[in-house]
Amino acid sequence: MKKATDLRELLRQSAQFVDQTVTVQGWIRNHRKQKNFGFIMFYDGTIAADLQIVYDTETPDFEGIQKITNGSAITVEGVFRTSPGAGQGYELYATAIKVEGTAPEDYPLQPKKHSLEYLRTIGHLRPRARLFQAAFRVRHVAAQAIHTYFRENNFVYVHSPIITANDAEGAGEMFQVTTIPLEKLKGEPDYKRDFFGQKAALTVSGQLEAEIFAMAFKRVYTFGPTFRAENSNTKTHASEFWMIEPEMAFCDLEGLMDVEEDYLKFVVRYVLENAPEELAFLDKYCGGGLIDKLTALVESEVARVDYHDAIDLLINSGVEFENEPTHGGDLAKEHEKYLTDVAFQSPVFVKNWPKEIKAFYMKDNGDGTVAAVDMLVPGAGELTGGSQREDDYNKLKVRMDEVHSTDSLSWYLDLRKYGGCTHAGFGMGFERLLIYLTGIENIRDVLPFPRTPGTCDF
Amino acid sequence: MKKATDLRELLRQSAQFVDQTVTVQGWIRNHRKQKNFGFIMFYDGTIAADLQIVYDTETPDFEGIQKITNGSAITVEGVFRTSPGAGQGYELYATAIKVEGTAPEDYPLQPKKHSLEYLRTIGHLRPRARLFQAAFRVRHVAAQAIHTYFRENNFVYVHSPIITANDAEGAGEMFQVTTIPLEKLKGEPDYKRDFFGQKAALTVSGQLEAEIFAMAFKRVYTFGPTFRAENSNTKTHASEFWMIEPEMAFCDLEGLMDVEEDYLKFVVRYVLENAPEELAFLDKYCGGGLIDKLTALVESEVARVDYHDAIDLLINSGVEFENEPTHGGDLAKEHEKYLTDVAFQSPVFVKNWPKEIKAFYMKDNGDGTVAAVDMLVPGAGELTGGSQREDDYNKLKVRMDEVHSTDSLSWYLDLRKYGGCTHAGFGMGFERLLIYLTGIENIRDVLPFPRTPGTCDF
Repeated sequence: MKKATDLRELLRQSAQFVDQTVTVQGWIRNHRKQKNFGFIMFYDGTIAADLQIVYDTETPDFEGIQKITNGSAITVEGVFRTSPGAGQGYELYATAIKVEGTAPEDYPLQPKKHSLEYLRTIGHLRPRARLFQAAFRVRHVAAQAIHTYFRENNFVYVHSPIITANDAEGAGEMFQVTTIPLEKLKGEPDYKRDFFGQKAALTVSGQLEAEIFAMAFKRVYTFGPTFRAENSNTKTHASEFWMIEPEMAFCDLEGLMDVEEDYLKFVVRYVLENAPEELAFLDKYCGGGLIDKLTALVESEVARVDYHDAIDLLINSGVEFENEPTHGGDLAKEHEKYLTDVAFQSPVFVKNWPKEIKAFYMKDNGDGTVAAVDMLVPGAGELTGGSQREDDYNKLKVRMDEVHSTDSLSWYLDLRKYGGCTHAGFGMGFERLLIYLTGIENIRDVLPFPRTPGTCDF
Repeated sequence: MKKATDLRELLRQSAQFVDQTVTVQGWIRNHRKQKNFGFIMFYDGTIAADLQIVYDTETPDFEGIQKITNGSAITVEGVFRTSPGAGQGYELYATAIKVEGTAPEDYPLQPKKHSLEYLRTIGHLRPRARLFQAAFRVRHVAAQAIHTYFRENNFVYVHSPIITANDAEGAGEMFQVTTIPLEKLKGEPDYKRDFFGQKAALTVSGQLEAEIFAMAFKRVYTFGPTFRAENSNTKTHASEFWMIEPEMAFCDLEGLMDVEEDYLKFVVRYVLENAPEELAFLDKYCGGGLIDKLTALVESEVARVDYHDAIDLLINSGVEFENEPTHGGDLAKEHEKYLTDVAFQSPVFVKNWPKEIKAFYMKDNGDGTVAAVDMLVPGAGELTGGSQREDDYNKLKVRMDEVHSTDSLSWYLDLRKYGGCTHAGFGMGFERLLIYLTGIENIRDVLPFPRTPGTCDF
């Protein structure tokens, strides 16, 4: 047989293949048998769309073909032709079907509705389900969008370290990394004799190291795994997830917001353009409105409002919130929703937050606030958090002494001593973006192999 | 002042800026002062090239400018003009210089020759050194090349898990990941009460999980961090490094070699085209020959030879090797070098290796060999290792039972039970590629923050 054609090529450039003989290789999603013919819903994973394969008694080994089970891998040679009845408007009339690998009758991924919970238990098979073929391809396309945006805008990609000895990043509980044989441990562990000669853990953020590189390359970004050991079982928390953390020298809070807005719109536009079949499927899956939501984001302008003004808007809204908005308090989901959906009817940057509820490295505005900014997006809430960084050595040192020892982060202070400058950056959880892009609600279903408390399968 | 122009834009599109007033922002590499004028070697990290800034007594605050130290961050407004004497053929005549951040006289990165060992101790400053600006930008460009190649060839990017409960990947010693408070541990640890309810570790390879996705998307690749807890202090070993692991369904050993060759040439060509300034610097740094070596690779054809024929070539070569070549033994560095530099004078695929010295998942050829292939490249040795995978359920089960328990990898066997097919993949250590691309010899110097036994800084 000839080299196989991808369904992606066949269906996207269908006109040039009509009435041609082609070979495809992939898997059977569903096999429906009639007396003198049969239909195979066929996929090869290169596009979120199935192709209908038709065969009849003229097809060699008709009886053998009728025995092929759902889930089997096959090679099919046939004539690609229009078919008003078929899902894609096309079908393949098979002239030869060869089985590459069978699946037993009890194949766990039969063509019927499975619960997301069940599919999580067969994580080695669920990527074949239509929902996950759409979700994980959007994950791929969004990752490509991110690299493309930063590459085209002269950001340097930095691999921040995964194993770290900094216990002071402060963003969350950490996993310990060790080669001490715990079975033989007697008494206190001697970290001098551990692999790295000191206590080590999995990173919770690459930001501090990204700042090192921003002082050398002007604009950089990280895109890598980060970890939280919180014992939290919610739809939005995972123990292992990917973060994007851009950092820019010679950039202030206003410049940061410009980049954040440009970046998010680019990524959403790229996904709309490069995953149309997947988004169409997901739009249906979540009951409509997904593509409209994403299109509106691309066409929106992101409003900018000071935190204290936003709190005033909430207080004066006349709305009875479950959580009373207060100057000095964080924004609850319902507050974010009011700001994006009612007050501004657009995405909103909320900026200049109370110092007390934000991180030590954010620039002190001198009025009780720091130059931090959260981007709130309709239908998603907070999608990014960023700040201008404190670049004053003495102010940063005082603040660091307040929150923890500066010993392990003296290098971070050094960045303010040796040619420091105005700089800013933000962080975005990749899976939070994917929940927004796919309409899928649970973070476990946008992660290829979710790690959560009690779960570390595959 | 106006928005700053990147040196990348200024120097690459120099013609359009000549005699224009521009603003640049960056850092002082070296400040040389004369009585009535001064020269500043200036960089902003957007390109591996410095710009000479000239000022004189006409420049406002001449005396203040003369006090600006090496390492300081500055904003400069000036006239961009040709200058036959300057490094780039251009210089900037300053009409205003503003200090953004100073550096003390004892700034550790003074413009003189520092040893690589010393620079490793100031890992938060070394990205500013010219060698590391070149090395880490090549790292960035190579990463972009990799994503671009796979995107354009319809591979789906998969984030394989970092934390894993598989103790059976077999590629090396593993780091344990835990939230058990070791200080309070008394007796044997109870892993049922550890974070994931079982013993967990850092992954040594994403291949097995990539196979899951290849059975759903046809062609996939991973590009993420992997870990080895070997207590090995060599120039080529690190405890944390990045791997690229593509996996293809409906692909055999010959198809695999086609992709490997195409992939490597694409990446090398992309770096030649997109990092010319960096490669020119690195070519000088390593005494010449780097760009020639890379160009030759792109223009080469990769030879293909069976392992046993390669061993015969070595035995019959008349060369007295330190390590005697034997049928059944691995290839030593000197053997690889003979094959690429003398026998074939080109890169070489060595394929069909003895089963005994290769991994359990490789396809049994039935003649004592498995369908494994190593790519040997002149000046680098082995750059990739790959194989066609065993797709026969029973053969794989027997092999897995030989080497370890199959309990934790029953899902891996399932892939052969449920619509399995001919498939193949390879792995490439990203830092091994970078050593090849940059001419830098020590893996510690192509990793942003190297983790090795006893070292976990920044």
